Amino acid sequence: MTDPNGPPRQELLGFASMSMNFSYCGNCGARTVIRIPEGDHLPRRICDNCGTIHYENPRIVVGCVAEHENQILICLRAIEPRRGYWTIPAGFLENGETLEQGAARECQEEALATVQIGSLLALVNITGAHQVHVFFRAGLAEPVYGVGIESLETKLVHAADIPWNDIAFPSTRFALERYLEDRAAGIDSYHSTELTRRL
Amino acid sequence: MTDPNGPPRQELLGFASMSMNFSYCGNCGARTVIRIPEGDHLPRRICDNCGTIHYENPRIVVGCVAEHENQILICLRAIEPRRGYWTIPAGFLENGETLEQGAARECQEEALATVQIGSLLALVNITGAHQVHVFFRAGLAEPVYGVGIESLETKLVHAADIPWNDIAFPSTRFALERYLEDRAAGIDSYHSTELTRRL
Repeated sequence: MTDPNGPPRQELLGFASMSMNFSYCGNCGARTVIRIPEGDHLPRRICDNCGTIHYENPRIVVGCVAEHENQILICLRAIEPRRGYWTIPAGFLENGETLEQGAARECQEEALATVQIGSLLALVNITGAHQVHVFFRAGLAEPVYGVGIESLETKLVHAADIPWNDIAFPSTRFALERYLEDRAAGIDSYHSTELTRRL
Repeated sequence: MTDPNGPPRQELLGFASMSMNFSYCGNCGARTVIRIPEGDHLPRRICDNCGTIHYENPRIVVGCVAEHENQILICLRAIEPRRGYWTIPAGFLENGETLEQGAARECQEEALATVQIGSLLALVNITGAHQVHVFFRAGLAEPVYGVGIESLETKLVHAADIPWNDIAFPSTRFALERYLEDRAAGIDSYHSTELTRRL
């Protein structure tokens, strides 16, 4: 069993800003400098030894609101940030997987639940954290789930029992609220917003 | 004026795979090793000198199908890959901007066009290139546009005049096809697909 506060695994960091430090060149190990490359319009970390430009771009967090018979799957976070607060399964998209595959994998990892990913629910731009959060609707065919190593507890709850005062992140709150509004209205739309900060 | 074949600007690389080389640690300059960190499930580039884990995640490309009076804005690429082929304005999302802001900026850069970004058109997972392409519908209030430094030519074309045999990328072809189908059907939906390779 892994100490959840121990290893600096990307998932275990939750949605912490994952900006890299490029003080040294990843290609040759020389010191980098910050400069706007010729033909570019933004400052970048540049290696004058080998010419490598170290671009930094937003990362994608994928997640889902997974439902079984009107109940929604939520997870109590075992890890910082926001340990002890409730969230829906979500985490960083990995190379080689689709958005939908990533969202399903996170459900498996955090709640040991196999879900069928459905329609797009929300695109949340977290500009201050250099992240885009992508949430889907999902279905849990059977009420089979468990407690993954990133969770302290997981459960299926009716809308009336969602612990709104203890939701971990504004983006997951946004996703849950839009999900319930759409469900009540019988529609299946997607929603886009910008949240400048995570917390 | 910048030589479009010159500087290794990220935009100028088009949608080339931007995977970083992390042979050396960006934080301390020491050699890295490839290993699965404790508690993780994927191999990462790790620095045993300072403990930094170099995560690599998919990058986001944003673009739009911009319309003015039934005509669509397309750009002839001045840069590799696919120099001399037609595309819609698109490029890498930058830190600090929303998906919509990034799509509008690319339109400005590549076609000197100011657009109003509308609804989501397509999510294209390019798993082999570690990219997610996000396309929006957009409106061009006036037929005012020009030739940005990444373009050889730009123009507004009717659907019948789209140069299908000379489209730069499968993802832009997918976006254009879905756009026209939806427009013909009078609907405004979004589409999701996976393309394993860019070309």
